[in-house]
Order: sequence, then structure tokens, then C-alpha cells
Amino acid sequence: MFQVPRGTRDFTSEEMEKRRYIEKNMAATFKSFGYGEIQTPTFESLELFTAKSGESIISEIYAFTDKGGRQLALRPELTAPVIRCYVERLQMEPKPLKLFYFGNCYRYDRPQKGRYREFQQAGCEIIGADTPEAMAELLACAFTLLTNIGLKNIRMNVGNLTIVGALFSTLNLQKDDQKKLLLLIDKSQFDDLRISLRELGISDDTTEQFICILQTPDIEEIHAFIQKDEAAIKELSSMKTVLDLLANAFKITEYGIKLGIVRGLDYYKGIVFEIDAPLLGAEKQLCGGGAYELVSLFGGSDVPTAGFAIGFDRTILALEAEGFAFPPPSLDVYIIPVNQEMLPTTIEISQRLRREGLSVDFDQLRRGVGKSLKYAAAKHANTVIIVGPKELEQQSVTLRDMKTGNQEIVAITKIHSKLKNV
Amino acid sequence: MFQVPRGTRDFTSEEMEKRRYIEKNMAATFKSFGYGEIQTPTFESLELFTAKSGESIISEIYAFTDKGGRQLALRPELTAPVIRCYVERLQMEPKPLKLFYFGNCYRYDRPQKGRYREFQQAGCEIIGADTPEAMAELLACAFTLLTNIGLKNIRMNVGNLTIVGALFSTLNLQKDDQKKLLLLIDKSQFDDLRISLRELGISDDTTEQFICILQTPDIEEIHAFIQKDEAAIKELSSMKTVLDLLANAFKITEYGIKLGIVRGLDYYKGIVFEIDAPLLGAEKQLCGGGAYELVSLFGGSDVPTAGFAIGFDRTILALEAEGFAFPPPSLDVYIIPVNQEMLPTTIEISQRLRREGLSVDFDQLRRGVGKSLKYAAAKHANTVIIVGPKELEQQSVTLRDMKTGNQEIVAITKIHSKLKNV
Repeated sequence: MFQVPRGTRDFTSEEMEKRRYIEKNMAATFKSFGYGEIQTPTFESLELFTAKSGESIISEIYAFTDKGGRQLALRPELTAPVIRCYVERLQMEPKPLKLFYFGNCYRYDRPQKGRYREFQQAGCEIIGADTPEAMAELLACAFTLLTNIGLKNIRMNVGNLTIVGALFSTLNLQKDDQKKLLLLIDKSQFDDLRISLRELGISDDTTEQFICILQTPDIEEIHAFIQKDEAAIKELSSMKTVLDLLANAFKITEYGIKLGIVRGLDYYKGIVFEIDAPLLGAEKQLCGGGAYELVSLFGGSDVPTAGFAIGFDRTILALEAEGFAFPPPSLDVYIIPVNQEMLPTTIEISQRLRREGLSVDFDQLRRGVGKSLKYAAAKHANTVIIVGPKELEQQSVTLRDMKTGNQEIVAITKIHSKLKNV
Repeated sequence: MFQVPRGTRDFTSEEMEKRRYIEKNMAATFKSFGYGEIQTPTFESLELFTAKSGESIISEIYAFTDKGGRQLALRPELTAPVIRCYVERLQMEPKPLKLFYFGNCYRYDRPQKGRYREFQQAGCEIIGADTPEAMAELLACAFTLLTNIGLKNIRMNVGNLTIVGALFSTLNLQKDDQKKLLLLIDKSQFDDLRISLRELGISDDTTEQFICILQTPDIEEIHAFIQKDEAAIKELSSMKTVLDLLANAFKITEYGIKLGIVRGLDYYKGIVFEIDAPLLGAEKQLCGGGAYELVSLFGGSDVPTAGFAIGFDRTILALEAEGFAFPPPSLDVYIIPVNQEMLPTTIEISQRLRREGLSVDFDQLRRGVGKSLKYAAAKHANTVIIVGPKELEQQSVTLRDMKTGNQEIVAITKIHSKLKNV
């Protein structure tokens, strides 16, 4: 027997209802923010991803050679493909360019709870605008996407890599050392960070102050720490403008500053952010993003870029953890012809109701009424119509409300108006 | 500079509007016919596809080995994955099981007009019902999917592999020879078919009669030819019931019998069909399907199965050939703050209109009103709102209708009701 490949999944109708609900809702939110949808291929040149993330990414992704000898890879994320597309054919579009997307991504990871080898992401990129109002809107859009689908218990943490860079400068650290430390900071492994800083000759006092600044939500405390660095002070002031707009104009206040948010990826710069669902514990991060530099690396003319991505799997887990009731799959009407002579009328009623926008099925296995009613119940049919010879003589059928079990005789011409009133 | 992989495509917002229009419309039609959506992984075990189509398929698909040594393949079609999923986890579901899907498929083909290495299909499978009413509904569903999206000029051809088998029996041909001939029949290469039949020792008279029967729409003519074969006569009678239901109960009459439709795949049996858009010439086939046997091959308990698939690319070409007007991407409202002090009000108006379901963007590059109006026009904005200090003193803004160029001063609280009346 064949099996679904390890780390991948089949989605049944019930699961697809959830995913489509989220997709539809998120597409509407993206569009309400003026974003237009884009879609890129499922695979790209392997080189696109190594250019962005280094050769080490090869060990984590599905890379393969096609019959023409091309080195390809199933995309592990969607920012690189979208920026590749921008550089290849969209550079002349009016700016800013606001693009959103849904797409499956692939990682050759050890499968575990909430982590799969094929997983769906929603995301967006804004190309050509990095004003505080553009950044505030980006953060607002990410937050609104999650609240619009029904999430109540989420929180945004906002960091800034330019400021973290300034913190590193005060410590006088090499780029290579910074990279190692960033990985520890990204995972909030502060004990390991202490050890590493001591090994690098940083005093205990400075280390504690540094770790304290990475965790403080207090913008004044950060200001005091970096006050000798003019560029960093300017960035902090700009970040304050972003967060003030977010709170006072976009009316989103569920955020905090947390410089420890560093997103572990070295193409980010300036503001970075994450949105968590605290109820989920270790898998709490639903969304991550920020400003980044990738266009010039891919051969395009330099232009500011920022974006974020949201994982579908954790978003569904978060909704379920909050007790969100997804609409279950259901069937509006199931029709039972009591014998084969009733079939043409059964089909005609089906077709008429389908044209009215209802979901309709009818017995196609010539089962008895009892068995057909069981099938209708299993399919969550709201109404069953029984087409029998006696009623048909009066141009009528039997309507059965599957919730109450009530039955009544209804003229065929009245079925639709009757169903609308149910 | 990086490029999109050969044979694959990026879809811009304008192209995505078309694809999402089709997807949304088709999902609604599938649901109206009582189908539930299913999704399977992008790749499967390579063996799944070789079991179905033979080793020769490997030369046509993207096959690769993952880091765990598994032989995988990007799916070339969706029936095998859906039946694999059925056998693996859905066999106990109440029958019939009606499943629809959208998915990208992959073939390592020479790219040409309307043929890509990554392409999207819509399709469905009905598992557990092969009564004439079930088959008639399947054909009706395929046809309705295409008419519901707006296609007017399409035609269905219905064949039957059981009856073609009976034709072959009258010629006394070996299975292997039959297979070769089926390929020629599938491509309507009747000259080559004549040569092959002569080489197999079939008389010219019989050959001409055989080719004539493959093309005739006349059920009586077919009946006369196979009248000695009881099983075939029974199949023909059942096919007649299917087509009568299609015409008289489902009210779909744009079809013809054509035994030459053999679908080239040896897992089909009984009724097969194709839907063409004659306007498209050589690329006219939009949809293909029929009854088939695959469940037992994949290790499941034998059960009747049938289904069809529709290609997105040709469907879009067919709509365009008919002059169908796809809704263009547009923006409901673009807001221009004349200076930075107007930004909080601009954002508040944006957010309010977004909550009302409108798509809204605002100037995030601090451009002048003239440049911003040009950007709004490029983004196909229907209305522009200009937020200026003088109007704001009166709690008002300027509304500009981008079609007529008319401007008027409107109170902020009245914007939404004003826009609804546009």
C-alpha cells in the first residue's frame, strides 16, 4: 500500500474548510490594505536560495537536478522567489508595490508537532517604501490579518537590528562573533549568551546590562544605552514614530519593544517583528517579518523592502486553542427518489436548487429511504427532500428538516422559498 | 540575474485575478454538486506513478531522491494521489464519496503554447457509484463547471472503452496491438491507423467500417456493428441511459457520441469523455475524464471510480478567445494626505473603510497631490480622498471620482455612505 510521503499530509474536506476559511479571510484583508496577489513557481534555481541564505541551506531543503541538468529546489520560503520575480519583471511598476501571496513551502526537517516538510504560508512584501507610515501599516496589516480570522489572544514584539548593531558596537565585537551571538539571542538562550560574552572578554556588568537591554520594553532605557551612537538614536526615534502611529492612528496597542527579536537571518535590517499566540507555548510564533535587503543581491536596483510571513498550521492550532468554531462542511439538501421513475424529477429539482446557489446531492445508489437518510445525516445535510409517486401526482415532495426531524409536503415550485425560510 | 525556471511562470496580480475568479467559481459549482474539497501533497512516492502508468512515465516527470533516500516525484496529475489518499485513509467513509481538488501538476515537457512544466488543474473523483445517474451527473458537473465560469462555445464528446474493446474483438487483435492502435485512435491519426490495420492483416473493408464506427455519432450504427457482443450491447444501452438523463433531466444537450475518444490511458474503462473549446484549434481540449480502475491496483477494496480534470491554462485561453471580460484588479479608495500632519486622519479613514470591506491604500511616500493622483490612476483607484488642513478644520475631506474627475467636499462621517452610492 502506498503512503503519504513522510512529513507531508492529505487534507480532508473538513480540514480544507478550515484552510480555505483562513485563505479567503486573509486574501480579503490583504486586498483591503491595497495589496495585490502574486504567485511564483513551486521550485526555483537552487542558487537563488544559496545566494540569499548561504550554502548551508542545501542541507535543509529539497534540492534536485532536472533532466536538463538544472539545479533546482522546492522553495523553502517565499520572499526570495517574490523578490526574484520583482527584479526579473516588475522593477518598472509604480512604487510602492504591495504584493501578497499564499504558497506551499518545503523543508527537509525532522517532522514534529506543528512542523511539516510541506507547509503553507501567507505573506506579503512592500517594495519601494520605508517611511514610518509604511512600516506602521505593515505591522498593522500583519496584526489585522490574525485578528480578522478571529484570533483574540496575540501579541506583537518589535525589535530593530540597526539598534542591536549599535549595542554590539558598544561591546566592540567582530562580525563573525556577532552572528554567533545573534543565533543565541534569537532563541532567547541568555545563559549560553552569558557564557559566550564572558569568553569574548566582556565584563559581567556589561553583559548583564546588554542582556537587560535586549529584554526591556522601555524605550528610554534603550535610548540611554545607545546615546553616543547618532545613527542608532535616529533609528530609535523613527521606530518610536512607527509605534506611535501603530497605537494612535492604526489603534493597535497589543505590542511591545523587544530588541531580542533578531529573526536569525542576516538579510534583515532595521525593524523586525514577530506575532505570538502565547497559548501555544513553544510553537507560539505565528508570524515573523521586517525590513530587509535582497533586491541588490539579486541584481536589481536598490530599493527598500519589507514583508512578513504567517504559518497556516500554527495559526489553525492557535484558533483551535482559543476554541474557535470552524464552520463544519455541510450539505444544504439531499434528495431521495423512492424509485427510479422519480429520478428525472429528482435531477430537475437538484439542478434548479444548484442554480440557486445551494449545495445539493441525491441518492445515486438506489438505496431505500432509510439507508439514504443515514447517508444524508453522515453528510451533515440540513434538509432532505423525498420524491415519491403519491406526492409527485400533486406536483409535491416531502421536505424533512434534519435537525428537528419535522416533515411536510411542499409543492415543487415552493421548495426554494421554503428552504430560504429554514 | 536569476530567472524563473524554464517552463514555469510567475503570475502577476492581473493574472491571479483571472485564476482566482475561475477557482472561486469552480469551487462553488463543485460544492453545489455535493463535492467536498481534498488536498494531497505536491510530491508522492515515484512508485505511485509508475504503478499507474508504467516505468516510461519517469522520462516525463520530475523525479528525485530525498535526503532519506526516498524516490519521490512531483505529481504529474491528481487522480493517483487522491486514490492513494482514499485507499490510505478514506475507505470507511460513506459511499459515494465525492471529492474535488485544485492543484499544481508538473511534467518535464518541452514548453510550448498552452503547455507548461508547472500547470494548475481542477478535478474531481466520485468513488463508490457507477449507476447511469452517477455517470450522467459527473458529465453534467464537468460541463456546468465550464459554462458557470462563462464559456459559451464548448462541446462534449463521449466515448466508451468497453465498446471499443468489443470493436477490437471483432477484429481479433492481441492486447499489445490494441494498445498501439489506441494511441493512434486517441490522436485521430486515422491514416496511420489504416496502415497499421493493413499490416495486421485486416481487410480494407473492415478497416473502413472500423474507422467509420469510431467517428459516427449514431448509436444505432454502433449497435449494428457490435450486435453479436452481449456485454457490449448492455454497455451501449447503459451509455444510452446516461446520455438520455444528461439531455432530458440535466438539460445538457451539447454532446455527441464519439468512440474515437479513448483517452490514451489504459486504466480507463467504460465511459470516457472530453470537453473541447473548438475556437482553440489544436489546444482545444479543456477537460478529460471517465470511469477507471485504480483502487485495487493501489491495494484497496475494489470499488467503482470515475472522475475528470480541467486544465486552467486552456480554460483561460478559451475564455479569452470568447472575449470574456475578466474583472481587472482595482482599488476602491486611494487617500492622499497633503502634508504629514494629515497622516493620523488619513490612517483613521483608511482603517474605517477597510473595516467596511473596501480596498484602501494611502500615500506612503510623501509625494505631492499630482504625483499621488498619477499613482492612484495607475492602481485603477475608483475614488481618491484628499485630506487637507482647510477641509479638515470642518471635519471634511475632498472626494474625487477618478472616472469623471468630479470633486466634492464630504464630511468624514459621510464618506462611507457617499462611496456606497457611487
